[in-house]
Amino acid sequence: MRISELSAKSGVAIPTIKYYLREGMLHQGEQTAATRAEYDETHLRRLRLIRALLDVGRLSVASIKKIVAAVEDESMPVHQMLGTAHWALSPAVEPEPGEEWQAARAEVDAFVKDLGWDVHPDAPTRDELAQTLIRMRQLGVPVDLAPYVEVVRKLVSEVEMRAIPFDGPRDAAVEALVLGTVLYGRALDTLRRMAQESESARRMSSPPGQTSDA
Amino acid sequence: MRISELSAKSGVAIPTIKYYLREGMLHQGEQTAATRAEYDETHLRRLRLIRALLDVGRLSVASIKKIVAAVEDESMPVHQMLGTAHWALSPAVEPEPGEEWQAARAEVDAFVKDLGWDVHPDAPTRDELAQTLIRMRQLGVPVDLAPYVEVVRKLVSEVEMRAIPFDGPRDAAVEALVLGTVLYGRALDTLRRMAQESESARRMSSPPGQTSDA
Repeated sequence: MRISELSAKSGVAIPTIKYYLREGMLHQGEQTAATRAEYDETHLRRLRLIRALLDVGRLSVASIKKIVAAVEDESMPVHQMLGTAHWALSPAVEPEPGEEWQAARAEVDAFVKDLGWDVHPDAPTRDELAQTLIRMRQLGVPVDLAPYVEVVRKLVSEVEMRAIPFDGPRDAAVEALVLGTVLYGRALDTLRRMAQESESARRMSSPPGQTSDA
Repeated sequence: MRISELSAKSGVAIPTIKYYLREGMLHQGEQTAATRAEYDETHLRRLRLIRALLDVGRLSVASIKKIVAAVEDESMPVHQMLGTAHWALSPAVEPEPGEEWQAARAEVDAFVKDLGWDVHPDAPTRDELAQTLIRMRQLGVPVDLAPYVEVVRKLVSEVEMRAIPFDGPRDAAVEALVLGTVLYGRALDTLRRMAQESESARRMSSPPGQTSDA
């Protein structure tokens, strides 16, 4: 298809497609004449991935370039490619100077090891969790992650990872990971707040002496 | 205690305390002389709540004023007071014009009704969920919320609501709700991404023909 059709099918404006081509985020089409190139389904799929990373993942162009490079490097194992995309979705957390940070970070490392989780030693999620633990302690919130670990373990292994097409095109696997992580992450957060409202109503609205089921 | 001690104990600077007093977010101390007032534990607790809403909940001063008014209105039932704080934590989602929005919103309403959840008809979480459903469909992500409902139901009723001191001071209940919702929400999100990384590694790193436990 020509660039005009690629634009119509993808919903991405022609100048934007040309920008992605210049930046190397989209692979060149097949040159059929001096001013004409042919594009195919792989270009459509790549545009879809870029839009998902941009709109849903809210990633920077710099981060997207790194992910696209990982998708294109066929020698990179699928797991590592997915890890690149996954890390880019984590908020940047700056380690704080001082012993409190060191201790919290060591606690996270021991915690991950105890769980037997295969999380990279430099994964940004480790710093993220360390920061949350510090904040909980500073604010006097009791720290008990066990119920949360149980929940995510089940959710991720029984539902979420099954939705990733590991055997299909590399673009499709990354796209499924990013969309699933971000969109279902948001759904999980919203449903949790709905359940909190409902449970709070249930507990408080029954007149004293009545059970909530009365 | 005098304002200097209140500042030292709370970690909130004196000019900031004076600002909260002027804005009515902190109740006045007991005037003991023309230029001197005495503060007590209730002021400390209120400052703690304001900081939690500001730093952890990232709420605006306008939202905090509404929550403080709900805390101070003793005639407002605890559940409703908590609801005020809870709603303020939800991101503002603008309903989009058009039938797609109407349909998604109707779907959410039917979904909540089917679950038997006691969520206010105007709760902002309903719009939030509608928006996520629309985004999922637009991007071709399969919509199946059931495993997420199961997870939050268990988490909220068995763990999270038990941590709210419904019978203590009103400030303390709101503070526990906000800190729990925000900090454990972040922990849940981080642990989920850790588990995804680990599970992806487990699935992909085993050479073909070997099980992951080999």
